[in-house]
Amino acid sequence: MLKLYHQGSSVCAAKVRIVLHEKDLDWESEYVDVLQGEQFNPAYLKLNPNAVVPTLVHDDKVVIESTVNCEYLDDVFPEPALRPTDPYQLAQMRIWTKRVDERLHPMTSVLTYSASHRHTILDNNTPEQVQAIIEETRDPVKRARKKEWIEMGMDAPTAREAVKEFTRTMVDMDKVLAAHPWIAGNTYSLADVALSPYLNRLSMLSMDAFWQRYPNVSDWYRRIQMRPSFKPALRDWVPDELAQSLATNGARSWGKVEELIREG
Amino acid sequence: MLKLYHQGSSVCAAKVRIVLHEKDLDWESEYVDVLQGEQFNPAYLKLNPNAVVPTLVHDDKVVIESTVNCEYLDDVFPEPALRPTDPYQLAQMRIWTKRVDERLHPMTSVLTYSASHRHTILDNNTPEQVQAIIEETRDPVKRARKKEWIEMGMDAPTAREAVKEFTRTMVDMDKVLAAHPWIAGNTYSLADVALSPYLNRLSMLSMDAFWQRYPNVSDWYRRIQMRPSFKPALRDWVPDELAQSLATNGARSWGKVEELIREG
Repeated sequence: MLKLYHQGSSVCAAKVRIVLHEKDLDWESEYVDVLQGEQFNPAYLKLNPNAVVPTLVHDDKVVIESTVNCEYLDDVFPEPALRPTDPYQLAQMRIWTKRVDERLHPMTSVLTYSASHRHTILDNNTPEQVQAIIEETRDPVKRARKKEWIEMGMDAPTAREAVKEFTRTMVDMDKVLAAHPWIAGNTYSLADVALSPYLNRLSMLSMDAFWQRYPNVSDWYRRIQMRPSFKPALRDWVPDELAQSLATNGARSWGKVEELIREG
Repeated sequence: MLKLYHQGSSVCAAKVRIVLHEKDLDWESEYVDVLQGEQFNPAYLKLNPNAVVPTLVHDDKVVIESTVNCEYLDDVFPEPALRPTDPYQLAQMRIWTKRVDERLHPMTSVLTYSASHRHTILDNNTPEQVQAIIEETRDPVKRARKKEWIEMGMDAPTAREAVKEFTRTMVDMDKVLAAHPWIAGNTYSLADVALSPYLNRLSMLSMDAFWQRYPNVSDWYRRIQMRPSFKPALRDWVPDELAQSLATNGARSWGKVEELIREG
């Protein structure tokens, strides 16, 4: 039996849901409301000491780390295969999944906060309440970043870095997709799975125009959206209210993002 | 034909050398003197746009990322196997290699700089020269960290973080090694490969006492040192002068490191 501890808007949880749907596996959902801090519940911390989603439970085995989950599911349920058999292509796949985890992932929360969450906070709170929201973060480095995202939005230095990292990703995706239809070669693989939630995040932020200059990326994302896994894995678990605010706030931030893209 | 672009003191390059020796493969060495900035040579950047070592070249195929290199070599040259066949143990192996890359690796340069390189810099330069060395780093965030490491050594906040991360690694290694002889199970695997250069770094810094409280780690490292791959992969490529300064400077910093370990 497969059980996934996950959450609607987590990009990492979405990757594992994609694999579950691509392999047409039955799985049980355990929703962890990260926005309510449920990842810190002692019972959950026993499963995942890092206090993040997702966590995969397969019979009596607990497996953490979404990228490891994806390879694990492909090891245990090999059909349809989501990894190239050629070792060189397999290496390219792993270079991409690693790059997404190490470089793109940290920039995604920066972008989402500076382009969307900040608007929700500023729209619904008095200046004193906003100050209190900033100060409830105890770690001084994290507090300084949060303050910057709320007060400066897309003008925050880290937000500019995020736009740069997404741009570098587009450039390099476009290059590999010029050579073959999927990221790691001729077949859909875990590299495509890994990137999908991140481009979907831009799309949910009304920022599809991010890849308009990259025809191969546009075509790839169109094909990703057409896969039967797209809606159930990437859209259906996102709470309506959150989807609405990502779309509206993202649209408000797009002008500035476009400016940053043009500046390069 | 296998060729490795590498450098003596790089922990990442050492991992790939371990795999090459464990599999008894013939390989050609291309030494990239990172301390002289050779990783920025245009010819090298073509192979590795990230400007880091190692880079593996197999016939006409270029593969970057040391962790990916290790899996690639095990895919292409499967004997002796360096990955468990059981999917759950394989997942545990990958959780460890990922943790080493994402958490331990960044802290290793912090520790090495604050515990050793700072002494070399302070011993051989006037205060004005030290200032110039700090100021040659253009990125303001990196410059501030460098200044902190040189001026504060192991009292720098990031150096304290590094000691904490190494301690957490020891605690968790000790726990899994209580259940089975190697990190991911009953057989030596890429998880053991991944951790070896990091404990070897502590050892080269005269800090073997870091794991004296962890008997399973002590026993594991003793077994790692006895493997025929240890000396050629982890020691022989380190320049003598660097080995000497790591040992001497590390010993000078140990008192403070020990204090930080005791504080927890």
